[in-house]
Amino acid sequence: MSAVRKPIICCALALISGLHWACSGAYAGEYPPPGSRTGPQNIILLIGDGMGPAHIKAYREYIDDPATPGAEKLAFDPYLVGSLDTDSSDPPGNITDSASSATAYATGVRTIDGALSVDAQNRPLGTVLEHAKALGMATGLVATSDIVHATPAAFASHQLDREQKNDIANQYFDNQHNGMPMVDILLGGGHKYFVRDDRDLVSEFVGKGYSLLRNRPQLINAQGDKLLGLFAREGLDKMWDRNPTTPSLADMARVAVRALSNNARGFFLMVEGSQIDWAAHDNDIVGVISEMQDFDLAVAAMLEFAHDEGNTLVIATADHETGGLSIGSKDSGEDLYFWDVDVIKTFSHTPAKITDEAQASGNLIDAFHDATTLNLTEKERKNLGRVDLANWDKTRRAVSQVINRRSYTGWTTYGHTAVDVNLYAYGPGSESLRGHWENTRLGQRIFQLLK
Amino acid sequence: MSAVRKPIICCALALISGLHWACSGAYAGEYPPPGSRTGPQNIILLIGDGMGPAHIKAYREYIDDPATPGAEKLAFDPYLVGSLDTDSSDPPGNITDSASSATAYATGVRTIDGALSVDAQNRPLGTVLEHAKALGMATGLVATSDIVHATPAAFASHQLDREQKNDIANQYFDNQHNGMPMVDILLGGGHKYFVRDDRDLVSEFVGKGYSLLRNRPQLINAQGDKLLGLFAREGLDKMWDRNPTTPSLADMARVAVRALSNNARGFFLMVEGSQIDWAAHDNDIVGVISEMQDFDLAVAAMLEFAHDEGNTLVIATADHETGGLSIGSKDSGEDLYFWDVDVIKTFSHTPAKITDEAQASGNLIDAFHDATTLNLTEKERKNLGRVDLANWDKTRRAVSQVINRRSYTGWTTYGHTAVDVNLYAYGPGSESLRGHWENTRLGQRIFQLLK
Repeated sequence: MSAVRKPIICCALALISGLHWACSGAYAGEYPPPGSRTGPQNIILLIGDGMGPAHIKAYREYIDDPATPGAEKLAFDPYLVGSLDTDSSDPPGNITDSASSATAYATGVRTIDGALSVDAQNRPLGTVLEHAKALGMATGLVATSDIVHATPAAFASHQLDREQKNDIANQYFDNQHNGMPMVDILLGGGHKYFVRDDRDLVSEFVGKGYSLLRNRPQLINAQGDKLLGLFAREGLDKMWDRNPTTPSLADMARVAVRALSNNARGFFLMVEGSQIDWAAHDNDIVGVISEMQDFDLAVAAMLEFAHDEGNTLVIATADHETGGLSIGSKDSGEDLYFWDVDVIKTFSHTPAKITDEAQASGNLIDAFHDATTLNLTEKERKNLGRVDLANWDKTRRAVSQVINRRSYTGWTTYGHTAVDVNLYAYGPGSESLRGHWENTRLGQRIFQLLK
Repeated sequence: MSAVRKPIICCALALISGLHWACSGAYAGEYPPPGSRTGPQNIILLIGDGMGPAHIKAYREYIDDPATPGAEKLAFDPYLVGSLDTDSSDPPGNITDSASSATAYATGVRTIDGALSVDAQNRPLGTVLEHAKALGMATGLVATSDIVHATPAAFASHQLDREQKNDIANQYFDNQHNGMPMVDILLGGGHKYFVRDDRDLVSEFVGKGYSLLRNRPQLINAQGDKLLGLFAREGLDKMWDRNPTTPSLADMARVAVRALSNNARGFFLMVEGSQIDWAAHDNDIVGVISEMQDFDLAVAAMLEFAHDEGNTLVIATADHETGGLSIGSKDSGEDLYFWDVDVIKTFSHTPAKITDEAQASGNLIDAFHDATTLNLTEKERKNLGRVDLANWDKTRRAVSQVINRRSYTGWTTYGHTAVDVNLYAYGPGSESLRGHWENTRLGQRIFQLLK
């Protein structure tokens, strides 16, 4: 199957989007020698999915130490260079989704919501990852969602419908370069999309020399430069809910750069903090803080690598805002200018795990108190006691609502909003990203920096 | 009175905050000669009060021309250099107000909410405007609020309680330098605070050679370099609600720089788009867009001046976010990723004027239709028909709610939120503002740039 599909995709890309991509054959023997590229040796793009300006500020309040003057900073705070307008190519007023936004970063071209590196007419658009591979660089995708979710998928597949995850997994194997899959390092969740009744992609990857990794110890000890890490059936648990066998985003990113660094021609790596978005879709501020922490630690790890390596560009941004989050809400009354981060600090795990535990034990109040030292009011206790535990979403939402009210956290939607997202960059090439741009500019600039 | 008060304030400032300010006497005969300062000749600081990231994006959607590729930009969009954390010195979790935020910009020091250029112990903090004046520069304050409102007041008065507006007006006259009021150009609203039973400050200013301006024609034709423009009893009408005798913020800013440019030693000017905040406090998106337009045109005028003049630093920022505004709301359903800016485009004036007209005519439905081509649904018509027109705030809020629902505009509070605000800069010294900073850094940097 792969032998048939590859040339078709290859030619389509070469013909239609030839600016940014070409068949591997065209590049055979034409790689620039190692070190001859003028751009940075390595490019690491970190995407905090759904991470709007308020998510960043919320996490900064969370890590603030009141005993020190000023606010403690996120790993990327010192490297703010600008902002990106996230609009897709849909009609004015439309708000982007993760597929069209990731396509803007991956291809430099705006497309419609739901589309992954194809235009509205389903014509494939070449990606920065494919371009890097064609230049002989190593490539990697890391995420806390299933690894076939929209954001990683846009870098290495071409699909009008982001929900066709089996096909995306197929493309990860079938879209090849010099007889090998396009992506050298795939780390995240989504095992169910790789081992199916109709196809066992895990075996196919292993047959190509990939090491299969299923848990944190295997990840940490992984050898070789072809890795397929699938640490959950779908998405990973949220950071605060994980057991010790599940890796953090920083764990995965560190192993990725260690493996990718074996390639003397450099690498392109995309690392996604996928579930900032998921928590925000749930209007779950505790989940947002958990996932912001996971992302922040991954950014810190990549900055540390870049600092030591010396010729690596680290870019951190988001694809859109999720939830209409604000640090301050009507519940606080009109005159109380206050957001109570201490409420969030009392939690050891998130409403998702509270809900799992409540479903297992049949007691939501006990599950709530197992996660926090926060005392419920009589009214809150009564309300939570009434929740239908059979309904997972409603239970989790009821728990989140208590936390939102008590912390004065505001949300306006369970969907996305259109506010600009921040852009951070460190290392060679970072100066070229300064300013306010449309999101496609980032993709276009990465193509230039790969030269 | 002024003769008595001035030395006291002067000595207090010199003793306590001597780093940034000194009695005028200490500078007598010690001015650097014109042009010998190493910083920019002129500094113009524009503050969009309450202008969070979403307010900026909302206005960008409003000015977007669907017929052109990409989004039309705000005047300051090309000059994004960073962002500011707006926290005050109150305990963690507190959200800043305009007084503490303006104090951070005016003095480089964090203080408590409500305080104007004094610390929590009511000790005065020297301001950049006072420092500029001490260096022999010309000074100006321009706002669409009353000119004794918190933001302008922090630059030229010292008050623990921002509501003491009569005292702030007194200080504008009494805080003098070389026998003249500290601020050369005062343009905005607030006539009632200057002409009172106990004191006629207008006469006192005129006695010092100031030209009194009460309407747009007088402003446009103003001569001289000492101007007191008071164009409303309190705040000016919102831009879309103004009659032709009321100046725009750009009108006032242009006249200010024309007058201030007479001083060969340069000038410091603060220009505030005051009512972005007021509209957002009202959760009034049409009012926000009206005031964003007023601010954007003023920024454009200042950038044009700076471009022509060649040695002027233009800084634009906000003091905090107001309203928890988001471009997208729950009303749109969970899956509709859409913000309907066309609804806002149908309005010729704001809910404030609709409410005034409804109170005058007794008919809110007619007043609504007088402002917009938007058709009310039967339910909306019924709801608006039930509003108690005697209650101005409730009437305006009912009108705004219709617009919010129809445009899918989200808000989470009638107060402020803690999200970072954007920082824009053009001209000499702008490079030194790049990055993410605490808000006090901006004030500290302006002091340095005044050297």
